[in-house]
Amino acid sequence: MEPKRLKNFINGQWVESKTHRWLEVRNPATDEVIALCPETTPDEIDRTVRLAQEAFWSWRNTPPPRRAKFLFDFHEKLQKHQDEIAGLIVNENGKTLADARGEITRAMEYVEHACAGPELLKGSHAEDVGTGVDTMYIREPLGVFVFLPPFNFPAMIALYFVWGLAAGDTAIVKSSRLCPMTVTRIVEIAEECGFPKGVLNLLHGSGSGVGEALVTHPGTVGVSFVGSSEVGERVYKTAIHHNKRAQCQGGAKNHVLIAEDAIIDEIMQNVVDSCFGHVGERCFAVSNVLAVEKVYGKVKEKFLDLSKKLVLGYGMEKGVTLGPVVSKEALNEMLVEVDQGIKDGAKLLLDGRNPRVDKYPKGYFIGPTVFEAEPEMRIFQLEVFGPVRCLKKVKDLAEGVQIINQSPYGHTANIYTENGGWAREFARLVDVGQVGINIGTPAPIAYFPVGGRKISMFGDIRGRANEAIDFYTDKKVIISRWHSSFQGVAKTLDDGFAMKYGKK
Amino acid sequence: MEPKRLKNFINGQWVESKTHRWLEVRNPATDEVIALCPETTPDEIDRTVRLAQEAFWSWRNTPPPRRAKFLFDFHEKLQKHQDEIAGLIVNENGKTLADARGEITRAMEYVEHACAGPELLKGSHAEDVGTGVDTMYIREPLGVFVFLPPFNFPAMIALYFVWGLAAGDTAIVKSSRLCPMTVTRIVEIAEECGFPKGVLNLLHGSGSGVGEALVTHPGTVGVSFVGSSEVGERVYKTAIHHNKRAQCQGGAKNHVLIAEDAIIDEIMQNVVDSCFGHVGERCFAVSNVLAVEKVYGKVKEKFLDLSKKLVLGYGMEKGVTLGPVVSKEALNEMLVEVDQGIKDGAKLLLDGRNPRVDKYPKGYFIGPTVFEAEPEMRIFQLEVFGPVRCLKKVKDLAEGVQIINQSPYGHTANIYTENGGWAREFARLVDVGQVGINIGTPAPIAYFPVGGRKISMFGDIRGRANEAIDFYTDKKVIISRWHSSFQGVAKTLDDGFAMKYGKK
Amino acid sequence: MEPKRLKNFINGQWVESKTHRWLEVRNPATDEVIALCPETTPDEIDRTVRLAQEAFWSWRNTPPPRRAKFLFDFHEKLQKHQDEIAGLIVNENGKTLADARGEITRAMEYVEHACAGPELLKGSHAEDVGTGVDTMYIREPLGVFVFLPPFNFPAMIALYFVWGLAAGDTAIVKSSRLCPMTVTRIVEIAEECGFPKGVLNLLHGSGSGVGEALVTHPGTVGVSFVGSSEVGERVYKTAIHHNKRAQCQGGAKNHVLIAEDAIIDEIMQNVVDSCFGHVGERCFAVSNVLAVEKVYGKVKEKFLDLSKKLVLGYGMEKGVTLGPVVSKEALNEMLVEVDQGIKDGAKLLLDGRNPRVDKYPKGYFIGPTVFEAEPEMRIFQLEVFGPVRCLKKVKDLAEGVQIINQSPYGHTANIYTENGGWAREFARLVDVGQVGINIGTPAPIAYFPVGGRKISMFGDIRGRANEAIDFYTDKKVIISRWHSSFQGVAKTLDDGFAMKYGKK
Amino acid sequence: MEPKRLKNFINGQWVESKTHRWLEVRNPATDEVIALCPETTPDEIDRTVRLAQEAFWSWRNTPPPRRAKFLFDFHEKLQKHQDEIAGLIVNENGKTLADARGEITRAMEYVEHACAGPELLKGSHAEDVGTGVDTMYIREPLGVFVFLPPFNFPAMIALYFVWGLAAGDTAIVKSSRLCPMTVTRIVEIAEECGFPKGVLNLLHGSGSGVGEALVTHPGTVGVSFVGSSEVGERVYKTAIHHNKRAQCQGGAKNHVLIAEDAIIDEIMQNVVDSCFGHVGERCFAVSNVLAVEKVYGKVKEKFLDLSKKLVLGYGMEKGVTLGPVVSKEALNEMLVEVDQGIKDGAKLLLDGRNPRVDKYPKGYFIGPTVFEAEPEMRIFQLEVFGPVRCLKKVKDLAEGVQIINQSPYGHTANIYTENGGWAREFARLVDVGQVGINIGTPAPIAYFPVGGRKISMFGDIRGRANEAIDFYTDKKVIISRWHSSFQGVAKTLDDGFAMKYGKK
Repeated sequence: MEPKRLKNFINGQWVESKTHRWLEVRNPATDEVIALCPETTPDEIDRTVRLAQEAFWSWRNTPPPRRAKFLFDFHEKLQKHQDEIAGLIVNENGKTLADARGEITRAMEYVEHACAGPELLKGSHAEDVGTGVDTMYIREPLGVFVFLPPFNFPAMIALYFVWGLAAGDTAIVKSSRLCPMTVTRIVEIAEECGFPKGVLNLLHGSGSGVGEALVTHPGTVGVSFVGSSEVGERVYKTAIHHNKRAQCQGGAKNHVLIAEDAIIDEIMQNVVDSCFGHVGERCFAVSNVLAVEKVYGKVKEKFLDLSKKLVLGYGMEKGVTLGPVVSKEALNEMLVEVDQGIKDGAKLLLDGRNPRVDKYPKGYFIGPTVFEAEPEMRIFQLEVFGPVRCLKKVKDLAEGVQIINQSPYGHTANIYTENGGWAREFARLVDVGQVGINIGTPAPIAYFPVGGRKISMFGDIRGRANEAIDFYTDKKVIISRWHSSFQGVAKTLDDGFAMKYGKK
Repeated sequence: MEPKRLKNFINGQWVESKTHRWLEVRNPATDEVIALCPETTPDEIDRTVRLAQEAFWSWRNTPPPRRAKFLFDFHEKLQKHQDEIAGLIVNENGKTLADARGEITRAMEYVEHACAGPELLKGSHAEDVGTGVDTMYIREPLGVFVFLPPFNFPAMIALYFVWGLAAGDTAIVKSSRLCPMTVTRIVEIAEECGFPKGVLNLLHGSGSGVGEALVTHPGTVGVSFVGSSEVGERVYKTAIHHNKRAQCQGGAKNHVLIAEDAIIDEIMQNVVDSCFGHVGERCFAVSNVLAVEKVYGKVKEKFLDLSKKLVLGYGMEKGVTLGPVVSKEALNEMLVEVDQGIKDGAKLLLDGRNPRVDKYPKGYFIGPTVFEAEPEMRIFQLEVFGPVRCLKKVKDLAEGVQIINQSPYGHTANIYTENGGWAREFARLVDVGQVGINIGTPAPIAYFPVGGRKISMFGDIRGRANEAIDFYTDKKVIISRWHSSFQGVAKTLDDGFAMKYGKK
Repeated sequence: MEPKRLKNFINGQWVESKTHRWLEVRNPATDEVIALCPETTPDEIDRTVRLAQEAFWSWRNTPPPRRAKFLFDFHEKLQKHQDEIAGLIVNENGKTLADARGEITRAMEYVEHACAGPELLKGSHAEDVGTGVDTMYIREPLGVFVFLPPFNFPAMIALYFVWGLAAGDTAIVKSSRLCPMTVTRIVEIAEECGFPKGVLNLLHGSGSGVGEALVTHPGTVGVSFVGSSEVGERVYKTAIHHNKRAQCQGGAKNHVLIAEDAIIDEIMQNVVDSCFGHVGERCFAVSNVLAVEKVYGKVKEKFLDLSKKLVLGYGMEKGVTLGPVVSKEALNEMLVEVDQGIKDGAKLLLDGRNPRVDKYPKGYFIGPTVFEAEPEMRIFQLEVFGPVRCLKKVKDLAEGVQIINQSPYGHTANIYTENGGWAREFARLVDVGQVGINIGTPAPIAYFPVGGRKISMFGDIRGRANEAIDFYTDKKVIISRWHSSFQGVAKTLDDGFAMKYGKK
Repeated sequence: MEPKRLKNFINGQWVESKTHRWLEVRNPATDEVIALCPETTPDEIDRTVRLAQEAFWSWRNTPPPRRAKFLFDFHEKLQKHQDEIAGLIVNENGKTLADARGEITRAMEYVEHACAGPELLKGSHAEDVGTGVDTMYIREPLGVFVFLPPFNFPAMIALYFVWGLAAGDTAIVKSSRLCPMTVTRIVEIAEECGFPKGVLNLLHGSGSGVGEALVTHPGTVGVSFVGSSEVGERVYKTAIHHNKRAQCQGGAKNHVLIAEDAIIDEIMQNVVDSCFGHVGERCFAVSNVLAVEKVYGKVKEKFLDLSKKLVLGYGMEKGVTLGPVVSKEALNEMLVEVDQGIKDGAKLLLDGRNPRVDKYPKGYFIGPTVFEAEPEMRIFQLEVFGPVRCLKKVKDLAEGVQIINQSPYGHTANIYTENGGWAREFARLVDVGQVGINIGTPAPIAYFPVGGRKISMFGDIRGRANEAIDFYTDKKVIISRWHSSFQGVAKTLDDGFAMKYGKK
């Protein structure tokens, strides 16, 4: 079967790109080309931006409750197509069906939160800041926002745009070139909801090409990016250079720290899931597992046991618990890092390289790969976006925190303990954006903002939730006073003013 | 056709009451009995309360986002049945189909706002109010709430329960005995959403019987009532006597004040609609129209002209713009008030009594009835829940405000002017809960709270919106401190603590 | 020395009452009469209310930042007189100087929070709830509020009025008849700040006389009461009957529950302080100490040891750690309860009756008195407002919670544990307004609201903090729309509207 | 008299710089050197940053209410020294004493708002986002912030640091090199309040030297800058390049638009004050006065009349209403712009060049200078930081808005009208950060955020108010779940769990 050529969605219409450059989208379990994704041309980009600009003023003037109604409708229709979308995710991303469904559950909550737009957009008002003078602010949308979602959550992160639309901005989503099919389907569903034309647009293509063109186009006002730290930093600084708003979420090297009172039998499955869920390709994935001396032995044993139970395969098949990584390039980079780890003296406890996956010999598979490593090693420090993890024994909780805070990343840190005092102290000390207590992947639900520190995030307004509204709007302060008064037109004010008004 | 016997919905099941007393529900346009509504028995009431109590703990422990998902589903299903519900409203309440649809549009927004439950339920947290001491509050639901909606908005006000459910309380709705069919259908739709049994219950019967039994039952924790001031006060004080929470919204006698700069040609249709929409049976209806000397003549002329254009009839028929009042009793009371007005010397400008409505000779019709009256007259002061209205010339804006503030009611007051200063001054001076500026029925959308002053409301927490969440929950403050610390288990803390933790 | 006759502060002036009834204020350590407090006459009360009403409109129209400046000034001046006020507290209330100082520290935070009035009074605004329609609410003060503080925190609770003043209401404080001197001094200090006359008023007298007259006077709009449950309920229902707002904080019987992992050596001093601080006369005092079997023996031993170390005496003297109770009547009631406890079979572990306090033989002293008692006993169930406490062994945490929730009171409950999970579960399960985790007296700081459940509070809006602002104001919703537009006066709008406005 | 050598305030001590470069501070009315300000050396800068870093961890761990107490104390002490500070402002900045006092009044409100720190720092908490899982965020301070205030409000803008301190950050203020004396005195006053050493630091020197060194130093985390657009953009991009937070408020070219219904007699003094107050050296100053045809003639006449009444002179002298501009360089630049205006064909209506100010012949004076100019002229477009203003007739309000939105700046825009509809429409249409309605200088009070658009602001979080707290903190999300439960240690749970717990 001929792979489908994906179309762009511009100003309410599906348009095939006139580009000569078509990027292959492959099923990472089979290496088959399942779609072709256009490298959208500069002309097409420019046209899209201009049409999104034209759509802005009218969308900005659509009352927020009416905008919310589109989102309620979108929510309903997405709900109906959940399974279909999950299947697309599996096929282009590689994760298991269970993970894909988990992604969608979370994604639905984004839409649910954005449905509260009219509530979130409320401004603040103060009467009589001085006699007769009132002050208030309203939250104004800004224009055309660019959304650059990554390949690893092709549905969830792509849906960042719902807050932009709730806020009254118009949106151009550029799909991840590895996983553009999911968001294409999502935009098709949005189309059914009848959003006014130009409000939501979808373009395909590469980050360095189409993405950069959007960020630097004078007609766009800001960008929400999620991806690697390296690219995130570049996008952020480019955007700032062009006087745009930007929030760029980068990579991570997350740690868990297991205290001596942790209930090892109960927690280890959660730790392992945190390491290998979504094929380890998520910014909330745990990379390094630290445990204090007293329990390290047991932690290590359990960790390896449970890791070995993971079943590699095509994510749509039953029983499979670990899919392939997203691309051959990604797999090769990972293998280089594993080699480097070995070279640097890290102890390879579990070697997942070159696994045998009979039915899918061409898949980009790597099994769980576990090192015992030291903080100064590259394998311990740098993000590996796949199922390659490190263990490390620490003397005490203090050493654990020290190691965590020496990481160049600052996305999450997690402690396993039943002790309320240790948990509180840990949460205060670690220099990260999200803290997990007995939870390895402390991803905030849609109702809370997300953002890392250090090279895990560039930008000062966090993503999602109420902070998304902060990002997609600007506060406009209005200060007023009037000269007209009842007294100016009064005929009955012959005595005490207040009394006259019935205020006694 | 035999009128339908309405069932109660108790603990997830539709149950026919064992009562011997069945109340007739009539179509006010035809006087036909269209349903029979049981006076639910004390035993049945008691059983319902107990089952709602049993359902509470589990519903309270259902995470708010999961509770919200039920409401999203409910929203979707209600949306589909809008027309059907509108038809039920017309048939049992009498208002026109357009008004019924308007009611539902507003009602949907209640559900939409309640869908934001997880956002609205967020508590507040302060770290380190003293060294090592944290304080926060959570919003806890309280138990079984009673909802006593009125006949005039049988869909909209009945839906107050959505905030209670969002908050984690369980609900018993007692339908209005005049209009119980609409809410019955709404609860059927809710049933399809699979709310856990006992979470939402519906009982039928009289206010003095079933309503009071619910309010005084030791198993209920509070009541939201909307109805007349007289009954509202009684319900409120009864509830308080039994140590329950209560918010009781009562009646109104709303005024508009037309300033000399008002654009008469543009505003008068709005004024007339405010007076006669929903057959004048709404707490936001305008009763008294005040205008300053300079424009009074024109206002009066236009008002009478437009009033005369209203077409009486059965609300389902095309072209009808004024339906019957809800019951024969209501009609008779109104006629008594009109007589009294005449006796008191008010000038009857338009007499709507005994109108001819050919196709519906048995309907409870009264046409627009307009007096020119003085503030001290009963017809000017007391609420008439139907299309009987007063006009009054005032010398200036100050006199207008004075008259407004002398009313025993304090629901709304409205000014028509283009002048920003007059509008602001008016808003500050009038002693009411809602102020309209060029809007005769300033009903807050679901995102803002509703409540009157003086005898228009009993209770200190307003209805709907975030305030509904305040009402249906109690804040529980939690103050914590821990004795365990990293230092207590430290092995590596040989020098500077902060440094050790990587905090430099 | 002749005891001072306290004056009322009415409309900016210190006025001696014309009453013939003067109530004696005694130093509970010495039984000396230290002041005479008038039973203010009905005429004086009426005059005060009327003057406070007259002061309202102007104070309501004073911009909130300007009102805040008075409070900043008040804060500064109170700060300077802290020691003096502390001395007054010791002399009329009996608590130790250290406790009195602690009270003032907390009291200062009330003023500090109220200084944020302009922030707390901000309303909410939504632009375009429908096309061209804006909605907002402002928080309006209501009129004259009555403050009925208790004897046990004569400075702190008396200062509830700061939130009322911040909100724009005027205040009448009725002093506790046992401890009227402290608040008199506080009002003198307020006087120096130049609050406009009539804004803050002070009356002396009994609760049943002056208090009730204020609550039922048609000119007052609401009441904040703190005292016993019995009186609180009465005041609440009286206020409601008269259509006033009311929040009445009542009594308490607070429990701590000590888990098996609690660090007994560290926590017991805190437990004992919670029991006997402020002579046990506080609604946050712990009355019943529950401990699980495994640690009960050690808890009991430590508790008795530390209790015995308390030193009775006059609170101004160094080394004294337990003052007298507030009055001879209070002491006698307590002794009756102790007798009853013995009769009911409670085991008297420590008998504080008839203690020897050499220098103050006339003082109303009772030493720490400790029972081992059972939940069904009166001494375990009912509030004893003084240093009489119970211990009780429980099988497990679940039994502890069960006992706590069977109490008729619901003010606080406290757990001592290092376990985060137990703490969370405890906090959710206990049916109280405040939860302490390793803190026996979980009194929220001024920045958080305070309120109990069951008979510990009557009213639905909690005290202090942002909730105080909710209580002392009403939201007024303003909905506006305008007919004038630029197009109505346009000469340049010959093409695309948005373009013309430079919005591209 | 030898001019005073200003010292730096580093880590709690006043230290004289070892620099060899001393910058002259002159009184602009007299040209006298009144102080010498050091160009602080790189070593001193580095040392200051390191000490501020060291002070951070302890200040971050000081409970917010305790931090607030320092600010309350600071507020009190500043209040006492108001006149003294006002005098310093006049002497180094040139503005009149009345303006200087006005500045301080506003400045005090900054401190007042920051005193609400404990309120503003509250985080958000959600219980049970999933079963047993809680999520919350806390607001964490970030480290050492740099404050770069401008010369034009040497007290007010310098006090931005109060929000940083309230938030728990430590601060390094670099004084404006033209006006360093005021902030030096302010820091002396802060010193008296006993802020812990290192928490607040003051360095002197140039922006390009000391300012840039602070912004690029690896030990600082962010910068708040107020100044020109050109420098603001440079500072912003430098800060971003170094991965710091930044908010840089730039210049402005503010417009007023006078509608035909404006009450010209009442408003023109306000318009003129908006143009020439603070010598026209403020980002809120009005530069261009637009009026619709019908009233333009009268506006122009009145404007010139009132402008001519301004009295030039030394700001400390009575009767003086317009001081000198801040420096000879500034004056010269202004004169160049005036020449250019004339060259470009703008009509000079009032020529303030080379005014005669007898007593102060060396002062940097320029009288009110008024053009009639066109939007495409440089004098109409670019910011002139002094009393040089333009008038312009417009056909209608639409043309006025069009002109406003074509400006490269977006700080404020102001309309004079009594019409509520025009005011609303204007506020929505203008692309600026602050809108004034009948107020020429719509500077938000401290309780509202400030920020412009386009080249008037670089950064996405506005300054002051709650937004300042957003800027000086990062949200850290904490997600927790526990494995321990009461059931794990239960002995009494033999039947229904909820019942056992007394929850029925």
